[in-house]
Amino acid sequence: TCFFALSGVLPKDEAITKIKGAIKKTYGKRGETVVKMNFAAVDAALAHLHEVKVPGKVTSTIEIPPPVKLEAPEFVQKVTATMIAGYGDDLPVSALPDDGTYPTGTAKWERRNITQEVPVWDPDICIQCGKCITVCPHGVLRAKVYEEKDLDGAPPTFKSAEARWKELPNKLYTLQLAIDNCTGCRLCVEVCPAKDKTQVGLRAINMAKERPLREGEQENWRFFEALPETIRGAVDGSGSELKFTKTKDIQLLAPLFEFSSACAGCGETPYVKLVSQLFGDRALIANATGCSSIYGGNQPTTPWTVNREGRGPSWSNSLFEDNAEFGFGMRLAVDKQKGYANELVDRLRKKIGEGLAKEILNADQTTERGINEQRGRVADLKAKISASDDPDSKNLLAVADALVKRSVWIMGGDGWAYDIGYGGLDHVIASRRDVNLLVLDTEVYSNTGGQASKATPLGAVAKFAAGGKPSPKKDLGLLAMMYGHVYVARISLGANENQTLKAFLEAEAYDGPSLIIAYSHCIAHGIDMAKGMEQQKLAVESGHWPLYRYNPGLRAEGKNPLQMDSKPPKTRLEDYIYNENRYRMLKKSNPEVASALLQKAQKAVAEQWSILEQMSKAEVDRPKAEGK
Amino acid sequence: TCFFALSGVLPKDEAITKIKGAIKKTYGKRGETVVKMNFAAVDAALAHLHEVKVPGKVTSTIEIPPPVKLEAPEFVQKVTATMIAGYGDDLPVSALPDDGTYPTGTAKWERRNITQEVPVWDPDICIQCGKCITVCPHGVLRAKVYEEKDLDGAPPTFKSAEARWKELPNKLYTLQLAIDNCTGCRLCVEVCPAKDKTQVGLRAINMAKERPLREGEQENWRFFEALPETIRGAVDGSGSELKFTKTKDIQLLAPLFEFSSACAGCGETPYVKLVSQLFGDRALIANATGCSSIYGGNQPTTPWTVNREGRGPSWSNSLFEDNAEFGFGMRLAVDKQKGYANELVDRLRKKIGEGLAKEILNADQTTERGINEQRGRVADLKAKISASDDPDSKNLLAVADALVKRSVWIMGGDGWAYDIGYGGLDHVIASRRDVNLLVLDTEVYSNTGGQASKATPLGAVAKFAAGGKPSPKKDLGLLAMMYGHVYVARISLGANENQTLKAFLEAEAYDGPSLIIAYSHCIAHGIDMAKGMEQQKLAVESGHWPLYRYNPGLRAEGKNPLQMDSKPPKTRLEDYIYNENRYRMLKKSNPEVASALLQKAQKAVAEQWSILEQMSKAEVDRPKAEGK
Repeated sequence: TCFFALSGVLPKDEAITKIKGAIKKTYGKRGETVVKMNFAAVDAALAHLHEVKVPGKVTSTIEIPPPVKLEAPEFVQKVTATMIAGYGDDLPVSALPDDGTYPTGTAKWERRNITQEVPVWDPDICIQCGKCITVCPHGVLRAKVYEEKDLDGAPPTFKSAEARWKELPNKLYTLQLAIDNCTGCRLCVEVCPAKDKTQVGLRAINMAKERPLREGEQENWRFFEALPETIRGAVDGSGSELKFTKTKDIQLLAPLFEFSSACAGCGETPYVKLVSQLFGDRALIANATGCSSIYGGNQPTTPWTVNREGRGPSWSNSLFEDNAEFGFGMRLAVDKQKGYANELVDRLRKKIGEGLAKEILNADQTTERGINEQRGRVADLKAKISASDDPDSKNLLAVADALVKRSVWIMGGDGWAYDIGYGGLDHVIASRRDVNLLVLDTEVYSNTGGQASKATPLGAVAKFAAGGKPSPKKDLGLLAMMYGHVYVARISLGANENQTLKAFLEAEAYDGPSLIIAYSHCIAHGIDMAKGMEQQKLAVESGHWPLYRYNPGLRAEGKNPLQMDSKPPKTRLEDYIYNENRYRMLKKSNPEVASALLQKAQKAVAEQWSILEQMSKAEVDRPKAEGK
Repeated sequence: TCFFALSGVLPKDEAITKIKGAIKKTYGKRGETVVKMNFAAVDAALAHLHEVKVPGKVTSTIEIPPPVKLEAPEFVQKVTATMIAGYGDDLPVSALPDDGTYPTGTAKWERRNITQEVPVWDPDICIQCGKCITVCPHGVLRAKVYEEKDLDGAPPTFKSAEARWKELPNKLYTLQLAIDNCTGCRLCVEVCPAKDKTQVGLRAINMAKERPLREGEQENWRFFEALPETIRGAVDGSGSELKFTKTKDIQLLAPLFEFSSACAGCGETPYVKLVSQLFGDRALIANATGCSSIYGGNQPTTPWTVNREGRGPSWSNSLFEDNAEFGFGMRLAVDKQKGYANELVDRLRKKIGEGLAKEILNADQTTERGINEQRGRVADLKAKISASDDPDSKNLLAVADALVKRSVWIMGGDGWAYDIGYGGLDHVIASRRDVNLLVLDTEVYSNTGGQASKATPLGAVAKFAAGGKPSPKKDLGLLAMMYGHVYVARISLGANENQTLKAFLEAEAYDGPSLIIAYSHCIAHGIDMAKGMEQQKLAVESGHWPLYRYNPGLRAEGKNPLQMDSKPPKTRLEDYIYNENRYRMLKKSNPEVASALLQKAQKAVAEQWSILEQMSKAEVDRPKAEGK
């Protein structure tokens, strides 16, 4: 607008009229509000057009900070920082990892500070439910439980409260913000259930201006980071294993996926973060092309990181069309390594010691505590053979880590799982191997610009479905259930966080293929992203997104594998979908078609529910998991 | 054996011992019978080893016949014959079709005469049921009904009988063999239900030595070919359309797929031939890589041919991985052409004439008679505009043929449909477009040498499943039914030929995607191929291959779309599978595993039946075909 107002390419008034004409043509079908907002932007640009004199000399005292924090390791300082600064082409080839393996945990060295408002914790109101932490897309909200003595040397503004855990008595609790990496998305505030009864509108976490808080919270974050970490499989005071079967507990587990470059308020990353909290220290991750591969491994940094013991996920990105196979290969490789390690342990019994060898070979790794114990044994094993020069010992040293249970996660978006990579996904679930597939379902090709996928719902507008998608969403879960031996869950964090958690735990525990389909709100839906979790809830309540878990393991107990985790539809579909521009724009541009599609969609919702309900009550469900 | 017996490379006895050792190693797991047969072959070779003196001059009077018949058209004489003779490299590029389009109907010019026995028809015993013609894999058995006067000039050995059709009174019937192309597979004899009561063991069709019959039957075949043809949509004496809804009727339709290079007794080609009989004159065929692409378009000849009016299928072979998409593109192209042709007809109403234009645009093409009438109209239309020089007329002339209903058939084997091309198959059935998919399910990669596919049944031995496939056959039909809008049929010609016919007719009539999964016995099963149809029957009776049709169109009538067409399992699985070497070899090599897998498979069969039965009786079946 300003260019045309000043340049004289066209007479000013003619140019502005043409700009507004173009706006109407481009955005007309998104509704009058959008058009008016664009008109207002043009008018405001003109109203605020004024000359800026360039001063003769620099007067600002603000310095451009270095691209990464000064505490960052050498590789990050030398290589990563150079790339961030935009001088990557100047790096010699010799500076890059010669096998293509990049260090993880590098996102945390970037400087962000991209938001003007950040959430502030009120320890007096907080009930320590952990909801805010669970939904935080960037892993910037964290909690720890620690001893009072650990507070020694805490910064003056560091906050704490009495910890509310029966299993962890007499401890303190702190909810801390990593202020540099917060995007100010407000999801945490929106989901907080604890109201401040003295001040209407305030909760246990509230937005406040960022700038005045920055240095203090940076100091608090550093102190918080140094506090002891809770790990899965840890024991409580009584010697019992802490189970971590509720989201309240999960908040205490450090995410090994933090500070990603996802959109503010992203609906996908909370699921990814949860995987990292639960299984990150022994996970192999195959990531399909799509948003998750971009925010998961956007050169030059990666949000995937390690815990204090240096353990974290191995991560790699494959193509759209072969990601399931890619992760399947990881499973085969690890199984082969484990088999070989078992062989060698058996052969080296005398050197290792009969007792240790037997314990290693017969280890029960069905609990996190069992896994931790096996880690200890493998460390002992390595110590015993590390000095040996015989081929068996050397070979065992190379594969000994595979003796600890690994968790393979194959993840990607709906474009991968429903469309381009579906042939491979089908092949992998048919294989009956123990892999976990996570579908981050935004119901559209988000990263490539909003094209319709087979996951796009009936009536939603997307590229290639400009008139509203005429066919219903493909029921990927139903297809997978037909195999009978696949663990399948349909989840929505915003609707039921405990069902989400159960699904992840059961999927990982199931000794076979598991498929989790996760409703992921998205900027492509045209929503206020702060309300993302509320839309997730409405998706479930309207019946568009029924929650269920299909666990073939239940058959052994004589139970139907399919368990419904949400109630029959109670909200009208229109009260869910018309909060979203992807549906609303059709209502504006073509109300008749929108209305017809809504009717069909409402009917499809009822039918979908009937089918699932019928299946969940049937005596014979699906072909049983024979031949496993 | 003879080489080693004569050459002295090794001492003779040592060489023979080593050969037998290699036989034991290679075939041991296929059972003692196979080993002994190989031993016997070695011994017989030695026993019959004798010197052959090369005569000083040629004394035989047999001439090598020319590679193709002398009546063949010029292209076949010049190009095809040169390739057959093995001199293809000598052809100039200019001799080849410049757009890659080859003439069809060329297989019939090849000389075969590969069998020593051929079937001979007994008109007195024959009940004219057409079963032999239906199962004939090479289309060498044909029948025609004609007037008595048409017999004028018949060769002396040409046979006929009174035709047994109520709709076709006072006519004659002939069952004729194309003797040059018969492979002697015996399928026709095995399925013949008409017994000769005077001579035990004889039926209405019986095998006899070929050589004495050759010249006479060649003459009979030429005469038979010239007799009038029956076409779908033809009318009977009373002016009613002949319906062709029974296999008895179908025998009268000339196949447009004849004399393919498939194995003797092939279980796939009878289905392909049936498609050609029913829809061949207006079919577009997309053929996945595999057996069907080899026998369907094996350079230099093709079995796909044209009828007397010159109409036949367009056929092309695509890749394993994109054949469904390839055929989908044919559908889109034809629909686009038809839409454009409609536009042009509308625009040229005055020139064409209001009456004809209206009739063309509103033609009812749901019956074959209606389609034939539209063909007539399009011929009239072409005549009216062929001389016009205006762009609309010229363009209409180019696309006018699309005004006649087209039938798109996407076909291939289980390797394509269940595995490599499944992602595309899923995408295409999700599209809701009117395409027909035919899966020729041999339950193994037949053409590439017998590798396991996801269609391979539990317990069968195949490459990559040498110890018996541990997981059950993927239920492709069930997956497709989950969409709710896909016509799905599971068929077996040997078990129920009328159900097979119904499935093809319904699939083609259904205005949406249709999937037909056809049990195809195969040499890879290790069976006596003459008993192929009996194995097909046992597959159904044992419950391994339940027959059903799932027709979404039935919902409109308030009916459940799923209709079971076979009875609950009544034969033990072992009485079916152990007729086949693919199962039997495991029983020989590893009886314990074979027994365990048989038990699992038997259980899976019962469960498969329960699920289908439950679905077929349920009130709510699958998501309805919304948004079509």
